[in-house]
Amino acid sequence: VYSEKVMDHFTNPRNVGEIENASGVGEVGNPVCGDIMRLYIQVEDGIIKDVKFKTFGCGAAIATSSMVTEMVKGKTIEEALQITNKAVAEALDGLPAQKMHCSNLAADALHKAIEDFQNKS
Amino acid sequence: VYSEKVMDHFTNPRNVGEIENASGVGEVGNPVCGDIMRLYIQVEDGIIKDVKFKTFGCGAAIATSSMVTEMVKGKTIEEALQITNKAVAEALDGLPAQKMHCSNLAADALHKAIEDFQNKS
Ligand code: FES
Repeated sequence: VYSEKVMDHFTNPRNVGEIENASGVGEVGNPVCGDIMRLYIQVEDGIIKDVKFKTFGCGAAIATSSMVTEMVKGKTIEEALQITNKAVAEALDGLPAQKMHCSNLAADALHKAIEDFQNKS
Repeated sequence: VYSEKVMDHFTNPRNVGEIENASGVGEVGNPVCGDIMRLYIQVEDGIIKDVKFKTFGCGAAIATSSMVTEMVKGKTIEEALQITNKAVAEALDGLPAQKMHCSNLAADALHKAIEDFQNKS
């Protein structure tokens, strides 16, 4: 059911953890299962220098978050805002329709983290 | 929300994998999120000598499965049949009520694996 890229990011997730005193933090919950995704960004001169995530969610949530952190690192805020749930799923060579609720957590949390950063600055 | 034991088994899950030519395999699905849990047992002289699990499920599913594998290894089939979802949750110092669907997968899969073993032998 799952692509090789999904399995890779699930079993070796990138950028797991927290950032202390992050520039922005985004948190979203999955209405289906109640799981929570939290994503932290460190912004310097308009560039996302560091990004980490933490979740207790399922493999689809972990794989998409891991992929989002790789896609976003080094990008400008404007570029990061253009990363959609669809783009993340495509970068992973697709995800089962049943797991869309889970896979949307990652980009949603990213956008919330950027919003949080913008509200603070 | 989660106990230290849950976090430990989530971040360092024990006995992840498959057993080739297992004595019994149990598979159960989570009706809430669609995730699947698969548990393998290797039985010799009525003793569960080895046990492994595989899932794409959430942290609660991973932690309870990891705990079940530790509880069951070296036990007789009769002892293993007495391990309940409640006993697993207690061994983990509790789990959020919201995650019961996920945490019940482990013991359910164990009992199905034992059933599979008994049907074969
Ligand atoms: S089932 Fe909870 S995040 Fe996927």
